[in-house]
Amino acid sequence: MPQGVPETVPDDGLTTRQRRNQPVLAVHTGAGKGKSTAAFGMAMRAWNAGLSIGVFQFVKSAKWRVGEETALTALGRLHDETGEGAAVQWHKMGSGWSWIKHGDTETDHAAQALAGWQEIKRRLAAEEHDFYVLDEFTYPLKWGWIDTDEVVETLRGRPGRQHVVITGRDAPPALMDAADLVTEMTKHKHPMDAGRKGQKGIEW
Amino acid sequence: MPQGVPETVPDDGLTTRQRRNQPVLAVHTGAGKGKSTAAFGMAMRAWNAGLSIGVFQFVKSAKWRVGEETALTALGRLHDETGEGAAVQWHKMGSGWSWIKHGDTETDHAAQALAGWQEIKRRLAAEEHDFYVLDEFTYPLKWGWIDTDEVVETLRGRPGRQHVVITGRDAPPALMDAADLVTEMTKHKHPMDAGRKGQKGIEW
Repeated sequence: MPQGVPETVPDDGLTTRQRRNQPVLAVHTGAGKGKSTAAFGMAMRAWNAGLSIGVFQFVKSAKWRVGEETALTALGRLHDETGEGAAVQWHKMGSGWSWIKHGDTETDHAAQALAGWQEIKRRLAAEEHDFYVLDEFTYPLKWGWIDTDEVVETLRGRPGRQHVVITGRDAPPALMDAADLVTEMTKHKHPMDAGRKGQKGIEW
Repeated sequence: MPQGVPETVPDDGLTTRQRRNQPVLAVHTGAGKGKSTAAFGMAMRAWNAGLSIGVFQFVKSAKWRVGEETALTALGRLHDETGEGAAVQWHKMGSGWSWIKHGDTETDHAAQALAGWQEIKRRLAAEEHDFYVLDEFTYPLKWGWIDTDEVVETLRGRPGRQHVVITGRDAPPALMDAADLVTEMTKHKHPMDAGRKGQKGIEW
């Protein structure tokens, strides 16, 4: 329901409004489809609510999620032109983070991932966006490229009202503990199991 | 991966291209978040691929998914103005299906749901859209308002290359059998469990 009724009301001294306005940390994990797709769907809602969006994709290929990128950045352009919705920034590791100068590109993936996180940490401290998507961010955590404890501490202590959605398989337990909302996507059936390859408009 | 490699290649006499181009029937079910959100995220991808979109929401309230509705219809408007992406139509039961004349409004939900399905059936036969979202469509099936066998038969026999995504809890087994892609969203943790109500930009 759009405005659901909570099952329990905690004795935390907060009003309903204060409690409602707490920033959300969401994690989409599991082996199924829809983790990133649901995060970008949430970004559409955020856009409509006037929350400025920052997407950070921790992926190798610039081709990943190009459909969602094109659609969301088109919505961002609409905002710039008409004031409708909110601003949208889309950054991806694959092509070298956009804030890093060319010629200065780090080719090591671990170092690139860490540079991405350091920039996000800086932006969280500066409250640069209202709604962050850290897409496929669980992998650099899993591989030890970025320190999970530091991420959890940073997210727990983030100032203001910044929503964060993190996607990827095998989310670390400490991250799920810190999250307000954890959804697991489970694969039951997939066209690739029947020997069908991905197709434009459906898979990317 | 955007272009994944199938685990098995079936002996069905089809080329990879023929197999790839088969229309997809996807079902998002389970008690977790993200079923509809992921469907609307897929619609963004479809929009970018130039697939015309028809959304049919089997919901009572006109407030449901207003964020996604505003964002996707903004993308549809962008298409009408610039040719970018694809056309978007958004219909919902709550406010009376838009193709039904005012004054003629059916107030019985079962009859409204059935009228919605009959219109979708007509559109599938006429190949009116490339990408359909039947949001919360499992409920009228579950409640027996619409005949599941008829839906499955219609979807299996739909002409051309029309993709269909169906969302909602408790998808009937016959529908899941017919689907190419079934994803179950499982709730692990939700802010409402901690007594927090939904907030704009996050929940709707």
